[in-house]
Amino acid sequence: MIVYGDMQSGNCLKVKLLLSLLNIEHQWMHINILEKETHTDEFLALNPNGKIPTVVLDDQRVLCESNAILGYFAEGTDFLPTDTYQKAKVYEWLFFEQYSHEPYIAVARFIQKYQGMPSERLDEYHSLQAGGHKALRIMEQQLSKSAFLVGDTLTIADIALYAYTHVADEGGFNLENYPNIARWIQSIASLEGYVGMS
Amino acid sequence: MIVYGDMQSGNCLKVKLLLSLLNIEHQWMHINILEKETHTDEFLALNPNGKIPTVVLDDQRVLCESNAILGYFAEGTDFLPTDTYQKAKVYEWLFFEQYSHEPYIAVARFIQKYQGMPSERLDEYHSLQAGGHKALRIMEQQLSKSAFLVGDTLTIADIALYAYTHVADEGGFNLENYPNIARWIQSIASLEGYVGMS
Ligand SMILES: N[C@@H](CCC(=O)N[C@@H](CS)C(=O)NCC(=O)O)C(=O)O
Ligand SMILES: N[C@@H](CCC(=O)N[C@@H](CS)C(=O)NCC(=O)O)C(=O)O
Repeated sequence: MIVYGDMQSGNCLKVKLLLSLLNIEHQWMHINILEKETHTDEFLALNPNGKIPTVVLDDQRVLCESNAILGYFAEGTDFLPTDTYQKAKVYEWLFFEQYSHEPYIAVARFIQKYQGMPSERLDEYHSLQAGGHKALRIMEQQLSKSAFLVGDTLTIADIALYAYTHVADEGGFNLENYPNIARWIQSIASLEGYVGMS
Repeated sequence: MIVYGDMQSGNCLKVKLLLSLLNIEHQWMHINILEKETHTDEFLALNPNGKIPTVVLDDQRVLCESNAILGYFAEGTDFLPTDTYQKAKVYEWLFFEQYSHEPYIAVARFIQKYQGMPSERLDEYHSLQAGGHKALRIMEQQLSKSAFLVGDTLTIADIALYAYTHVADEGGFNLENYPNIARWIQSIASLEGYVGMS
C-alpha cells in the first residue's frame, strides 16, 4: 500500500496517525504541493481532484479524501463505533472538520506557515480567525462534557480534529482559552503509537 | 422525528429526498436562515454550529451535518453499500461534496439567488466559477464510466451531489457541456418517491 502525502499537512497526518495506531504497514511517498506535484498527469490519473492524501491499496484501488480514508481503515476497530447513532456522530464531526474547521484553521496556517503571510492574503488571513475560533469553541464545549469528541474513547473524530487543532497556533489561533482542548491534545499526543508532524 | 430545514437549501433537500425515498415519516420545521433563526439560543442548544439541516430523533437525540444524517438513515439500506471499500468510496464523494463542490456551487448560488448579486460579493462570485467547474468535470468523468457515482445503483453519494448540482445554473454554472451529469440528473428526478426543491 502506498500513501501519497506530506507530513506537514494535517489532512495527511490524520492518515499517518491512524495507520500508526493500528500498526498497518505502508509506504509513504512524499508529495510537494508547492511544486505542484499533485497536478502532474500521473497524479491526476490517481486522483482527478489533485489532492493529498491519496492512498493506493495493495490491489491498486485508490482512495482519496482524508476522512473517508480514516473511515475505511477504522471500520471494525475500536476507532469507529458500531452503534449506528454513535457512528453517525463520528461522521458528524468529520464533516464539521471539513466544512467548519479546516477551511479556517488549516487555510490560516497555510498562509502563515507555508506562504509566509504574503500581503495579498492578509485580509483573508484575518477574516479566517472568527470562523476558526467558532470551531474551537464548539470543540471546547463538547470536550468539557466528554473525554473525547464522541464518548469516552478515542475515535477517528478525534484523529481528524486533532490534525489541525494541535498546530492551530501556526495559523494564529491561541489555544490558551481552551483548557479542555489542551487536555485532549495532551492525551492524544501521549498515545502508544503516536506520530506527529515531522 | 423533527427535521429543521429549508427546502430551498441543497443541504436540507438531501435529507428530505432520502427520507422520502425511504418512506420515513417526519415533521419538517421550516427555518429561515436570512432571518437568523439558526442563531437563536433555542436553536444553538440543538446545534451549537447554528446550521440546518438539524434532526431531532424520536428519542430527542440530535444529529447534524447533512451528509452524516444521510449516512445514518442509509445504513442497512440499498443506498449505502456494505462492502468496506465501496462504502468508503461513497464517503469519499460525500467529503468531496462538502470540500470541493458545495463551497463553490452552493455559495455562488446563494450569492445569485438568495442575495441577488450584491456588488460587494461580485468578485467572490466570479472567483467561485473555476472551482465549481472543476468539481463538475470530476463528476462528469466518473459518470461517463458508471451509471451512478459509485457503481450502477443509486447511493447517498448521488443524493448528496444531486442537491446543488441540479440547481447549479442558479449559481451561474451552465450544465450544457456535461452530458453525463444531465443524464444522471434526469434519472434521479424520475425516481419513485422523488421530491425536489419547493
Ligand atoms: N478534502 C481533502 C482536502 C485535501 C487537501 O486539500 N489537500 C491539500 C494538502 S493539505 C492539497 O493536496 N493541496 C494541493 C492542491 O489542492 O492542489 C481531504 O480531506 O483529503
Ligand atoms: N456542513 C453543513 C452545512 C450546512 C449549512 O451550511 N447550512 C446553511 C443552509 S444551506 C445554514 O444553516 N446557514 C446558516 C448559518 O450558517 O448561519 C451540512 O452539510 O449540513
